[in-house]
Amino acid sequence: MNRHVLSILVENQAGVLSRVTALFSRRGYNISSLSVDVTENAERSRITVVVFCDDLIIEQIKKQVEKLIDVVRVVELAPERAVFRELALIKVSANADNRPKIISIVDIFRANVIDVASETVTIEITGDQSKIAAFVALMEDYGIKEIVRTGLTGLCRGNNPMRKHKDVD
Amino acid sequence: MNRHVLSILVENQAGVLSRVTALFSRRGYNISSLSVDVTENAERSRITVVVFCDDLIIEQIKKQVEKLIDVVRVVELAPERAVFRELALIKVSANADNRPKIISIVDIFRANVIDVASETVTIEITGDQSKIAAFVALMEDYGIKEIVRTGLTGLCRGNNPMRKHKDVD
Repeated sequence: MNRHVLSILVENQAGVLSRVTALFSRRGYNISSLSVDVTENAERSRITVVVFCDDLIIEQIKKQVEKLIDVVRVVELAPERAVFRELALIKVSANADNRPKIISIVDIFRANVIDVASETVTIEITGDQSKIAAFVALMEDYGIKEIVRTGLTGLCRGNNPMRKHKDVD
Repeated sequence: MNRHVLSILVENQAGVLSRVTALFSRRGYNISSLSVDVTENAERSRITVVVFCDDLIIEQIKKQVEKLIDVVRVVELAPERAVFRELALIKVSANADNRPKIISIVDIFRANVIDVASETVTIEITGDQSKIAAFVALMEDYGIKEIVRTGLTGLCRGNNPMRKHKDVD
């Protein structure tokens, strides 16, 4: 089982996200994370899906997703040809005494404090999953109240726009 | 029609994302953006959905989503009580001549260049939607090749964990 990241360009129509997620759940493929929003063209959205499965299975999934109505293009973002980022908001228990310690770790990770209350700080961090995991592990010493993550998103590196996976392979 | 942001805590089970998105599409509510990933508890994921609809409709949607299997809790994140962030990756046409100009704008927005090729730069930016829209508008002068966005994510401000929307109201 390897991590696979699919970037799915779709027409911005009601129901297309539901058809994509239904295809995964019907076949028992568990989506690890998913994010979707409009692209540079307001009529199209891009869905980024992370799924853990065998390499043979991902080829089948790609072909099945491509056949869905309103799906324009499916590209697998290979780690060596793509840049990936993820955004996490993390609410940590903090008081006046330990807040400076937390903020010094925040600075090292180039994260940002986006809310401070009497008993908590909320931190924004972007990066790859290993960076965020390392930061979360350090924050566990203080007590994590809540985490929300966007899931991984990504683009192909370099000059070429994302092409059909058949062209890329 | 107003923007509403729902934060939906779910059990990390295959099919729950599909049930949530199907509920929206069956009733013709168009999801503007969605992101989902695991939380501080690996057995639970948090889905953040942005939907434009009337205030009366969002109350109905919340009640319907709460009834779905594996849905633990639904909270509407009100702008005055929550912090929101979004992550966008933007690939812009660039050459050796105009790259410094692009990078100076990137610095002003506290964005980051994450990939450089002979004809493009790829930029990571986080913020609220208006900040990202302002940055995208400036980049349009250079030519935008591709954008991928995670959609909005958010947490309630302050000390309280996200409660059932009935408690918060």
